[in-house]
Amino acid sequence: MRALTRQLVAVLGRGVVPTEQPVATADDVGLVRGDGCFDAMRVLCGGPDPVVENLDAHLARFARSAATLGLAFDEDAWRELIADAVAGWEPVPEAVLKLVLTRGPESKPGAPTGFLTLTELDLDAMHAARAGLRVRLLGRGYASDAFADAPWLLGGVKLLSYAVNAAAKREAARHGADDAVFTTTDGYVLEAPTAAVIVRRGEELMTTPPGATGILDSITVRSLFERAAVDGVQGGYALIPTAELLTADGVWLASSIRGVCPVVELDGRELATDADYSARIAAWGGF
Amino acid sequence: MRALTRQLVAVLGRGVVPTEQPVATADDVGLVRGDGCFDAMRVLCGGPDPVVENLDAHLARFARSAATLGLAFDEDAWRELIADAVAGWEPVPEAVLKLVLTRGPESKPGAPTGFLTLTELDLDAMHAARAGLRVRLLGRGYASDAFADAPWLLGGVKLLSYAVNAAAKREAARHGADDAVFTTTDGYVLEAPTAAVIVRRGEELMTTPPGATGILDSITVRSLFERAAVDGVQGGYALIPTAELLTADGVWLASSIRGVCPVVELDGRELATDADYSARIAAWGGF
Repeated sequence: MRALTRQLVAVLGRGVVPTEQPVATADDVGLVRGDGCFDAMRVLCGGPDPVVENLDAHLARFARSAATLGLAFDEDAWRELIADAVAGWEPVPEAVLKLVLTRGPESKPGAPTGFLTLTELDLDAMHAARAGLRVRLLGRGYASDAFADAPWLLGGVKLLSYAVNAAAKREAARHGADDAVFTTTDGYVLEAPTAAVIVRRGEELMTTPPGATGILDSITVRSLFERAAVDGVQGGYALIPTAELLTADGVWLASSIRGVCPVVELDGRELATDADYSARIAAWGGF
Repeated sequence: MRALTRQLVAVLGRGVVPTEQPVATADDVGLVRGDGCFDAMRVLCGGPDPVVENLDAHLARFARSAATLGLAFDEDAWRELIADAVAGWEPVPEAVLKLVLTRGPESKPGAPTGFLTLTELDLDAMHAARAGLRVRLLGRGYASDAFADAPWLLGGVKLLSYAVNAAAKREAARHGADDAVFTTTDGYVLEAPTAAVIVRRGEELMTTPPGATGILDSITVRSLFERAAVDGVQGGYALIPTAELLTADGVWLASSIRGVCPVVELDGRELATDADYSARIAAWGGF
């Protein structure tokens, strides 16, 4: 536990507030029903000015999540709040910027609560993850097409209702693993609780499609595939049978904060790894 | 919209606080990940002292939810907080007491956030619901045994991660219905977003079993079945094929706050109703 992690908090309509100051009332349905959405991205402070990675793509996804939930979204206000927060931030090498939008207090219909946090990243933990992850497979209880024609299940929305994702990480930890990968009832790979899964077969990269699977559309994977294509490597979206993880030429968990991390062990079985290729794919992902 | 609804807020370790005072920090994982649980019950203020209905059963279920999430639970502290809140409450005919426990701030591991709200009930809305509900069936994406041997899916826990439940109610409203009932992929009835389903076949009452279905163990149904048994009517737990809702002698949605409400219409089709029996079953449920 690192007691001195730096954190900054800013609230939509109010700007930067003291970090310890509570931001949600007891009747905020974001708090009592997980009714809201978030997005998260990395902030790099190595250069003269801090850089918010893929800000446009993250804001666009955040806006899509809000629209699916029927929440008003003011992109200009968010951009201003982010600029104020970053300007008020004492630079650290890597930080995570999290944007949160809830449906707001039940007593004030139509008044969403928006806030952001800027938090120093634990680089030791990040480097350890980027060196390799031990993963446990966990069933998600859904078939691979469970979210087709069922918009009320909120597939693809980066929801505040993440308790199952958090529980899956704890379940993995109980078995000595670093992370979980969810699987479907019909035998396919979904995603990790906070990351996408990328599989390599020869010179081809593959990930699970969003849409009917309900998984999040990964910004890291999209930008990784774009850069890989420039180097002549094709990335594609297709359902991946769970058994293929064991025979693949490589498996990675990709997310905006932790980066592109090779899976070195799956349910206790060692997976094929290739340090050179992992460095290439991490670079394509911006890490 | 009723602007003058009364609400009282009390925080574990602090007691009653001003209603508008925020209670959760920006890094509280109850707020940003829906990582926590709640429970809710009715408070009746008709007599000389307010009565918290089924308090022991609700506290026991709240403690089970907390235990499944691995959250520390201090029953004595909760009882004291509830007593303080009720004592500080200006009586209204019916109120809802909601207890909320989150995993707490990410920056303070092991320090859960606990608070409660006491909120005046909108009796007009309650009476309308108790007179009859139009319901829409919505698939939940799970088979009826999806939660068997998958504790990380948190079946039976009254989670703060309720965004899908809230979205289902909005979807129902978009189709002119008052509420939704979730169904399984294999054709059975689950529960409503915030209520249990009771079906009558002749002199027998039936509800969906908790456990492998992942649904909440309804306190209203348990106490209703106990009182019905005294009158010679048996209540049981069994999977109910969705089609049976149309041919049943009656269907009700039962919950601690709204009561035992007859379903009068299902996906636009009128259901059999019996006002006398609805009054009986409501009385067994304490309404």
